[in-house]
Amino acid sequence: MDRISWVSTQLPFFAPDTSLLATTTEVVTEADTASVLAGVLLTLVIIYVASKIGGEISYRLGFPPVLGELVGGVIVGISGLHLLVFPGSGITAADSNLIKFLELTAGLNIQAAEATFKSIGEVTSVLSELGVIILLFEIGLESNLKSLIAAGFQATLVACVGVTVPFVCGTLLLMNVFHFEAVPAIFAGAALTATSIGITSKVLSEIGQLKSIEGQIIVGAAVIDDIIGIIILAIVASLAKTGEVDLINVGYLMIGSIVFLGGSILLGNLLNMRFSSIAGKLKTRGNILIPSFIFAGIMAYIGVAIHLEAILGSFAAGLILDETEEANELEEIIKPIADAIVPIFFVCVGAQTNLGVLNPAIPENREGLIIALALIAVAIVGKIVAGFVVFGYDKINRLGIGVGMIPRGEVGLVFAAIGASSGALSQSLQVAVVMMVIITTFLAPPLLRIIFGKVEPEEFEEYSA
Amino acid sequence: MDRISWVSTQLPFFAPDTSLLATTTEVVTEADTASVLAGVLLTLVIIYVASKIGGEISYRLGFPPVLGELVGGVIVGISGLHLLVFPGSGITAADSNLIKFLELTAGLNIQAAEATFKSIGEVTSVLSELGVIILLFEIGLESNLKSLIAAGFQATLVACVGVTVPFVCGTLLLMNVFHFEAVPAIFAGAALTATSIGITSKVLSEIGQLKSIEGQIIVGAAVIDDIIGIIILAIVASLAKTGEVDLINVGYLMIGSIVFLGGSILLGNLLNMRFSSIAGKLKTRGNILIPSFIFAGIMAYIGVAIHLEAILGSFAAGLILDETEEANELEEIIKPIADAIVPIFFVCVGAQTNLGVLNPAIPENREGLIIALALIAVAIVGKIVAGFVVFGYDKINRLGIGVGMIPRGEVGLVFAAIGASSGALSQSLQVAVVMMVIITTFLAPPLLRIIFGKVEPEEFEEYSA
Repeated sequence: MDRISWVSTQLPFFAPDTSLLATTTEVVTEADTASVLAGVLLTLVIIYVASKIGGEISYRLGFPPVLGELVGGVIVGISGLHLLVFPGSGITAADSNLIKFLELTAGLNIQAAEATFKSIGEVTSVLSELGVIILLFEIGLESNLKSLIAAGFQATLVACVGVTVPFVCGTLLLMNVFHFEAVPAIFAGAALTATSIGITSKVLSEIGQLKSIEGQIIVGAAVIDDIIGIIILAIVASLAKTGEVDLINVGYLMIGSIVFLGGSILLGNLLNMRFSSIAGKLKTRGNILIPSFIFAGIMAYIGVAIHLEAILGSFAAGLILDETEEANELEEIIKPIADAIVPIFFVCVGAQTNLGVLNPAIPENREGLIIALALIAVAIVGKIVAGFVVFGYDKINRLGIGVGMIPRGEVGLVFAAIGASSGALSQSLQVAVVMMVIITTFLAPPLLRIIFGKVEPEEFEEYSA
Repeated sequence: MDRISWVSTQLPFFAPDTSLLATTTEVVTEADTASVLAGVLLTLVIIYVASKIGGEISYRLGFPPVLGELVGGVIVGISGLHLLVFPGSGITAADSNLIKFLELTAGLNIQAAEATFKSIGEVTSVLSELGVIILLFEIGLESNLKSLIAAGFQATLVACVGVTVPFVCGTLLLMNVFHFEAVPAIFAGAALTATSIGITSKVLSEIGQLKSIEGQIIVGAAVIDDIIGIIILAIVASLAKTGEVDLINVGYLMIGSIVFLGGSILLGNLLNMRFSSIAGKLKTRGNILIPSFIFAGIMAYIGVAIHLEAILGSFAAGLILDETEEANELEEIIKPIADAIVPIFFVCVGAQTNLGVLNPAIPENREGLIIALALIAVAIVGKIVAGFVVFGYDKINRLGIGVGMIPRGEVGLVFAAIGASSGALSQSLQVAVVMMVIITTFLAPPLLRIIFGKVEPEEFEEYSA
């Protein structure tokens, strides 16, 4: 396809308008197709270089590789080299060193730069989302439905406490100590409730704790937390907008989540047998992989369609397929695919982290810094408290469970973004929320590593190469 | 990320303008991010279902699975169910049943439908291009640089004859029998020169002939053919535009191709050792995969940047890495990734095939049909003749080599598209070229299968599951 656009670039006369052919070409005044491909290829190269260098350094320092991937993303992203930046928020093609490089080396036209920048950003975003979808599918495969259900009550308890404590404490603190109004305080308090299931589960997998009781409680609680988070977001967003709560929407989300998760578990056994019988009959390449991707894709789609999240769907799909005979083979097949696509997600999260908010030389940041310190304390203590409500186990790492819930990650950023755009958060409060997200996200991986103890190289082996 | 856009959809007031955060969100009046993700997920499900059903049926009928993937694409594409259609060429969101389904089930706003349709098409196109890039990387890994160089002279001969004969015969036929002017005749003649390296190499791999002498000659010739095709396209496009040939551009392309391919081979040994030493030092997951993807990505990027093709770069990267110690392991790792992404390419090629041109009830098609029959004959005979110029081997399947060069695939469509948009091709001539492309593309896989004989299930095993 890229030849068309190449010729179009070379020969403006030949803007293709192929009335008989259904090709994917756009008019030339829009994005330059060849440059979009070139840009995506370069973006992937940048992501892989950042993730591998970051991951290796992090591993050698005794931290989970994913921390290095996040830091690698920060270095190439908006806070660093500006190689991996995304359109929007006042960021244009002129802010992207990648676009400059494409203009220099791949003959990208300056007129087409903005549209090309947008297209590259769009494709990269979707790849990053597919990355976290595959990650949660893999985590689902590695998890065990039975032990997750067994941990279900404890996980729900941890999730509820881990949502309530930071929410109530954060809101009261902001209202009473910092004298904010109710709505902004509630919004910032709500941002404290999130848990980044992606970051948490990846770290657990890397330190070999995913299948432990602690790991299963953390993952279960993070999933429930994610659902509660979506519901809280719907509540505070409508509260900030109209001063009232849209009960129908909230009710819809609650029922949807319960039906979705419950239905997945109940239908699981039926789907299992179907899957094995289908996979057994296929004779061409991808006989296990493709049916599992079809299933995960449908589940992820349902997740998005009912206004939950795609990752909940792919996680449920992984859990269900873990019960099939093909589970072990599938786990092996998924590994290289996850290795190829998951780093895109983590590097992109890092790349979108704006460390500028940590700079105390900017006046707005100073007030934010002080509020941030208070929020960070609440964010950490609130989740650690949640870990200690686990009961009935003798030898369980309750501190580890709490720490596992700390990273807010991309979920926290979504709260901050919506809070800012709705006008509910003042600039200093927004800075504080973003800071809280950054610190908790980057703090959790090394903390988890320390709390769960040193993983011996032999134990690590399963997770390396 | 999708939560932002979800809330935006629910609450138009909260169009996020996140001045502090660098997120990937767009203003709501543009594409609906959550729907883009939902649409891409559904597109992937459709592609996988079509490819698997098509591939399995084709395999059971004794044909290469890729033929079934192409047909599966036709069924879900513009000529069939309209589930997988791409924007452009007068095709809008209203033509897409996928968009209708998204409006129905995922709450896609009608205002955002057009932009969402465009974004889904863009992402799918890039995924499809990444698919053929990975395919050629895998083919490069399966090929052997030494035997390819050994076959180099024969391959060059086959490519040159296979370009010259159809080009000259086609042009003369159109000028003398059908009384076309020189420029349209030359353009249509040029479209006869193409060879779809993707389709040919996939079929060869599936019937277990990729590593045979015939297979190596075909792949080598297809690569050279691809380069000659790009140069011819540059010549005829500038001829059609100004009546003159842009010698500087053509010279640039020629020198670029020679330096690129020659340089890759010469530098290969140096890069080999570097690669092994780097991969040996890495200790985290993806220690072989990620460096190989970085290398393939850079090579593919150079391919696009010097106005050749990305697939030439990834093919060269695969060839070079095939010489490393890690080659066998890498081949195993690449397999599931290829299984996941390559079908996207073939289904998309099928989906973009407009069978409407084969309908004799439409008056323009009738004249086209007659010309098409003549062009198809030239297209097939011209490539078969090329196979018979191979000398020096006693027992070689010369007919097989010729037939392997027959499919024009997506490369032929590019010629037709540019010819139509430049005004060089009349509508009937364009219809004829498109028909020729469709017939040769769909004819070659079964023919190759028949000529190279029945593959026993045991031999097939390597390529299945």
